[in-house]
Amino acid sequence: MPPEQVLNEVNLRSVGALVEQIQKEPALAKTLWKSEVRWKGAFRSESQSRNLRPVPSDEPVTLGGGDTAPNPVEQLLGALGNCLAVGYAANATLKSIRILSLNIALEGELDLHTFLGLGTGNAGFESIRAVVDLETDASPDRVQALHQSVVATSPVGHTLSRPVPVKIELRRDTPPA
Amino acid sequence: MPPEQVLNEVNLRSVGALVEQIQKEPALAKTLWKSEVRWKGAFRSESQSRNLRPVPSDEPVTLGGGDTAPNPVEQLLGALGNCLAVGYAANATLKSIRILSLNIALEGELDLHTFLGLGTGNAGFESIRAVVDLETDASPDRVQALHQSVVATSPVGHTLSRPVPVKIELRRDTPPA
Repeated sequence: MPPEQVLNEVNLRSVGALVEQIQKEPALAKTLWKSEVRWKGAFRSESQSRNLRPVPSDEPVTLGGGDTAPNPVEQLLGALGNCLAVGYAANATLKSIRILSLNIALEGELDLHTFLGLGTGNAGFESIRAVVDLETDASPDRVQALHQSVVATSPVGHTLSRPVPVKIELRRDTPPA
Repeated sequence: MPPEQVLNEVNLRSVGALVEQIQKEPALAKTLWKSEVRWKGAFRSESQSRNLRPVPSDEPVTLGGGDTAPNPVEQLLGALGNCLAVGYAANATLKSIRILSLNIALEGELDLHTFLGLGTGNAGFESIRAVVDLETDASPDRVQALHQSVVATSPVGHTLSRPVPVKIELRRDTPPA
């Protein structure tokens, strides 16, 4: 195996195999992702995907929570950062760029009026910023091309920057009489 | 304290105090949320908010990962479900509705072509669905009003369904010579 195939600890073989499969059968690219959330009392809940360990959620004390885990809007920022990290690792490896370290600081503003029932406007983030701190010995031109590839292909980045139809359906159960 | 103040394990006093503060000084509603993501090699990373425990991220084996944690798009779905759970707990308590159990199943479709560099379209979710399974003895009318309050005030729901400006800035470090 040529050395660049394990650069950045990324093994491109499994990704390469998926790319080949999708080139032969494009419908394989249509994927469905899932998460199951269970409420645990107060503002605590946990999300689970596949058979992986459940991930806890809570709110800060100022918002009535117990401060035991990141809250949903912090999780959203984390999801963006983790998505960008995968994007840098994958694209750097494809371009034979060695990553020495990679940290991403994310932040976003949110007006609590709507969430707290004091208004009817946007309850969500008004804007989101990510500052990517990438340590590498690659040339500035190659690093800039890497950055552009990542931004152009980030699933979470695209989900946040575009309007996505979100359908929320209620199924109510009545307890046994 | 009247009993409804601790219904659903939610203590509305701290939320009530925040609402009163914001009514006096609306600028207090403008909040900034943060997360810091550290790359750990391959497609593994972790996100941290405040001084809370870091949350791991990985990709499934089919996408070149080690399958040790939910991936970023699963985290995004989890963030939506956790946000809805907080919304139900808060609004149900305000409306004196007892929640017996609450589970939320989330799913979304994503076409991998763009993420894998095989196309230039939308890399993100095309649509997202949440099915809320709420067990309660409240009347259907009150449950429907609860549902509408939650959907109208969900920070993550609004963030996903609206286009949000996302700015991703690269700061490159060169290693010491």
